[in-house]
Amino acid sequence: MTTHRFEATAWHNVLAKLPAALHVTNGDTVITETLDAAGVDKHGIARAQGSNPMNGPIHVDGAEPGDVLQVDIIRMTPIRGHGWTRGALAANVVDPERVRDLPPRAKVDWIIDAEAGTVRLKEPVEGLEQLILPIEPMLGCFGVAPAHGQAISTATSAENGGNMDYRGFGPGARIWFPVFEPGALFYLGDCHAIQGDGEIVGTGVETAMEVEMRLSVLKDRKQAWPRGETAETIYTVGNARPLDQALQHATTEMFDWLTGEYGLSPVAASHLMGQAVRYEVGNVFDPAFTMVCHIPKKYLPKSQKPR
Amino acid sequence: MTTHRFEATAWHNVLAKLPAALHVTNGDTVITETLDAAGVDKHGIARAQGSNPMNGPIHVDGAEPGDVLQVDIIRMTPIRGHGWTRGALAANVVDPERVRDLPPRAKVDWIIDAEAGTVRLKEPVEGLEQLILPIEPMLGCFGVAPAHGQAISTATSAENGGNMDYRGFGPGARIWFPVFEPGALFYLGDCHAIQGDGEIVGTGVETAMEVEMRLSVLKDRKQAWPRGETAETIYTVGNARPLDQALQHATTEMFDWLTGEYGLSPVAASHLMGQAVRYEVGNVFDPAFTMVCHIPKKYLPKSQKPR
Amino acid sequence: MTTHRFEATAWHNVLAKLPAALHVTNGDTVITETLDAAGVDKHGIARAQGSNPMNGPIHVDGAEPGDVLQVDIIRMTPIRGHGWTRGALAANVVDPERVRDLPPRAKVDWIIDAEAGTVRLKEPVEGLEQLILPIEPMLGCFGVAPAHGQAISTATSAENGGNMDYRGFGPGARIWFPVFEPGALFYLGDCHAIQGDGEIVGTGVETAMEVEMRLSVLKDRKQAWPRGETAETIYTVGNARPLDQALQHATTEMFDWLTGEYGLSPVAASHLMGQAVRYEVGNVFDPAFTMVCHIPKKYLPKSQKPR
Amino acid sequence: MTTHRFEATAWHNVLAKLPAALHVTNGDTVITETLDAAGVDKHGIARAQGSNPMNGPIHVDGAEPGDVLQVDIIRMTPIRGHGWTRGALAANVVDPERVRDLPPRAKVDWIIDAEAGTVRLKEPVEGLEQLILPIEPMLGCFGVAPAHGQAISTATSAENGGNMDYRGFGPGARIWFPVFEPGALFYLGDCHAIQGDGEIVGTGVETAMEVEMRLSVLKDRKQAWPRGETAETIYTVGNARPLDQALQHATTEMFDWLTGEYGLSPVAASHLMGQAVRYEVGNVFDPAFTMVCHIPKKYLPKSQKPR
Repeated sequence: MTTHRFEATAWHNVLAKLPAALHVTNGDTVITETLDAAGVDKHGIARAQGSNPMNGPIHVDGAEPGDVLQVDIIRMTPIRGHGWTRGALAANVVDPERVRDLPPRAKVDWIIDAEAGTVRLKEPVEGLEQLILPIEPMLGCFGVAPAHGQAISTATSAENGGNMDYRGFGPGARIWFPVFEPGALFYLGDCHAIQGDGEIVGTGVETAMEVEMRLSVLKDRKQAWPRGETAETIYTVGNARPLDQALQHATTEMFDWLTGEYGLSPVAASHLMGQAVRYEVGNVFDPAFTMVCHIPKKYLPKSQKPR
Repeated sequence: MTTHRFEATAWHNVLAKLPAALHVTNGDTVITETLDAAGVDKHGIARAQGSNPMNGPIHVDGAEPGDVLQVDIIRMTPIRGHGWTRGALAANVVDPERVRDLPPRAKVDWIIDAEAGTVRLKEPVEGLEQLILPIEPMLGCFGVAPAHGQAISTATSAENGGNMDYRGFGPGARIWFPVFEPGALFYLGDCHAIQGDGEIVGTGVETAMEVEMRLSVLKDRKQAWPRGETAETIYTVGNARPLDQALQHATTEMFDWLTGEYGLSPVAASHLMGQAVRYEVGNVFDPAFTMVCHIPKKYLPKSQKPR
Repeated sequence: MTTHRFEATAWHNVLAKLPAALHVTNGDTVITETLDAAGVDKHGIARAQGSNPMNGPIHVDGAEPGDVLQVDIIRMTPIRGHGWTRGALAANVVDPERVRDLPPRAKVDWIIDAEAGTVRLKEPVEGLEQLILPIEPMLGCFGVAPAHGQAISTATSAENGGNMDYRGFGPGARIWFPVFEPGALFYLGDCHAIQGDGEIVGTGVETAMEVEMRLSVLKDRKQAWPRGETAETIYTVGNARPLDQALQHATTEMFDWLTGEYGLSPVAASHLMGQAVRYEVGNVFDPAFTMVCHIPKKYLPKSQKPR
Repeated sequence: MTTHRFEATAWHNVLAKLPAALHVTNGDTVITETLDAAGVDKHGIARAQGSNPMNGPIHVDGAEPGDVLQVDIIRMTPIRGHGWTRGALAANVVDPERVRDLPPRAKVDWIIDAEAGTVRLKEPVEGLEQLILPIEPMLGCFGVAPAHGQAISTATSAENGGNMDYRGFGPGARIWFPVFEPGALFYLGDCHAIQGDGEIVGTGVETAMEVEMRLSVLKDRKQAWPRGETAETIYTVGNARPLDQALQHATTEMFDWLTGEYGLSPVAASHLMGQAVRYEVGNVFDPAFTMVCHIPKKYLPKSQKPR
């Protein structure tokens, strides 16, 4: 198992079957520095076009269509002392007739204090003078090359992941993506120092980070949408509009997981999901919205295990 | 401040301006036993028609249109040793082309052990033999008479509350409803011993409970949708289809709360919501879906206070 | 068969089980003058509260739950020389981030020239100096009392009809409503001199009209949503949000009609609908949107007939 | 102006910036034979993978980003005596709880009689023995390379066109696409002998056709979504889910057209659209739905003209 320091020199605004920027072996660790969502690096220099320029793709040897790529996010370290947000709710998250009451979507700077582990507005606003938020790092956009020769914009997301903007995608998360192309072709970028549910101002605190992750291949797994696990739960991810359809995708994927690898009958899966499911909202801003469906591990059948 | 023991003798399948079954004074406590969602009482006797027959309405003296009714849920005690669910995911929460893979929506019995504080299937199913869930009581349907002479079915929900099926509506919750009719005319029923997010099998564990709550009037409050608070958060509730619109209602209401009573500017409210908001899904089964928008109290401006 | 001249003296903002204002017999004709959507009569006098005050209810003797009420719109005659619209697209019909580009929703007057059969702006605007539209009268809001004691606002619509704002509901139209209460309890109002699809400025040309219609009862008909026919087509009406769900309701109702009274197999109904269906948009402004599903009569099985 | 006979030898399942299969000059005519949606040619031989393999791309000299590609569909001639459909309504167009009542989605053959100009089931089904439909040819999927290096699946559609499945895209139609890549890179395929609104069985009568069209470049036009005109109307096309959002896109594009090239004020554009707009449903089956917004030419300002 090797650790690769991967210095990106080109970035991509689509997830697609593109020439690999790095080749790794099953189980290798990769450390890489990302640009922020606007393509600006840790020195404040614009290196690539927005939105969400990606490092990658990383070719994982042995990954084939029908397999699953396991991504363990080991560490995300801010490498810049500042980040930015948009200072207004997005038009689509308020009642349409109230859009006019929203402020302009100005770019606003935040201070990221890595030592203190905090994020705060650079220029405090009235009423929020004391607002000091914890750094809760997350990957806004990451995933693998999609199927059928598609090149999917990093503004949006699909079965292959992408711009899901889910705050659960931080250090400690383990995520599984279905593999559609040989080598999986993994991409990442768009790090947030913190973000609320839904990314309802259209951004988290956008910044550059050093990301450390392990990439592994699980052979021959039936899986349609991204899956993941935390210490407490297993989860599935659906990406679509409207939010209802994102929820349908995530719910169906969980149903398939429970009736598949966990061996529950459709009735048993319904009982467990009906009384124990928790939903979390990824983004409700991008072209595809993201809904995440969690089941507590403590209620899962003991005889099976999470892959 | 009086405590009323309210024994319902008639039940309603709409929230409407109907003759009061009980008159109380601002700040009074009411204790009442509800039927389950199918109209069956604690003895297993069918007393009313489903769905969701309501106790009430309770007339709170002094409540006028433009005021707010504060409901403190003090206690919810199961008064029946069993409950029931539907044993299949609802058709609308899975991908449409997968509906055929769902089992029939059979009625299934659960044992509610009030002493142990647990809920479990009466007839265990394979893989869930060990599934013992905690009792987490909640009011599936409650609210006040709506505006303009409407009589809104207890199958659905709106600005006045109703069948929101949100698991946060349990003991300790404080909820505020806008008042549309003199006396507010408060209704309640449809108790669940536990329920997952979304009520995705179309039911929680449906049962009869004794509910104790305090009803208070707050004069002259500008509020469009239900609001509430927990020990940790304040929250707003939007009811509509699709889920996107429920989210818009809840988000707009939170924006109005923060820019109104909390005195934040639209920019400041956007900052706070953008990086700190949490959404929870009420139901995605009823005609109107329910989305709940939370903001942690610790980040609220110190100079204001939650009403 | 009697012709009733029905002069309304009270109006309603809900469709509900209310005391009948008129009793008629199966097959009777009713002539009545409506107020406009704001409650203003033919003399320009405000007689009732908006929105959409209704004449009625009309009790049709012999109509019972499970029957169908047939409404033949015979004539709609403008009885006022002017109408009004809102002069701006509704916020919900444009891209959310473009709402700010819309003008204010000012009330604008139109001249209705009954003799010439035309509608035109009272104060012409640049570029539309020559805009002379035909009078195409339609009932914006009409229907019967809903089920289960509901009182449904005339701002919205449901299985019982209501504020569907479909331009097909004019003279010559035959519409069938499912009956939920004894006597059906028919309501009407909210006449438009003309309206585009979707009612996308939130109004047609709102005015007062004299409406002549025949009310008949069809016994024991299985029907869930409004149905209708024109000279060329049969159609079904779905009311819901989002538009996708309105379309699902209308499509399911047509499927049930073709496989029910027309005796087609599910496969045959699918063939016919798949290659010959036409959809028309009722409203996309009200709380429930309206989608209409048409099948040309010329393709219907010859051995059956439309009821 | 040259006429090119373009014989495709490779087909594509994405619209993307791919090497041109043909170069033409502004105003040239192209005649080409398409495969059907499953990749089968006029001889019944499978030549490419479904879904919707495209002929192209055709590079139109002089077309640059910011221009518009004008496509005049001159002729569509069936070149195969048969087509196929799916014999069941799609799961997503009926009420979710009714999906189980749909038949299986079997492939069904139809006879296309080019001489008679008719389409009929190869094996008649009961009740539809007399069903003889006219040939109404249309292009299911066509458009140009999208922006930002995307490769968009021919299963779906976007600003650049694609799988819109709108029955208005037949002979006589003039359609304008925004150009995102040099040469526009035009693709076409997926011809239908006939199709109802919405493509609600997931297909029209899928077949191979010879298509004749003229490709022209209009320089420097501000346009976000496909536009078109018929003899009677101008129209705009929105592609998205849910249908509400497709409608928002189409409506916004029409508003921009009327306030842009037609010079109407926002108020005037609202008046005209509010009382005269007609919507038509393209598809409600593909990942993105399609809504088309029409305005009659007779009401357009006389001083301007349609590009």
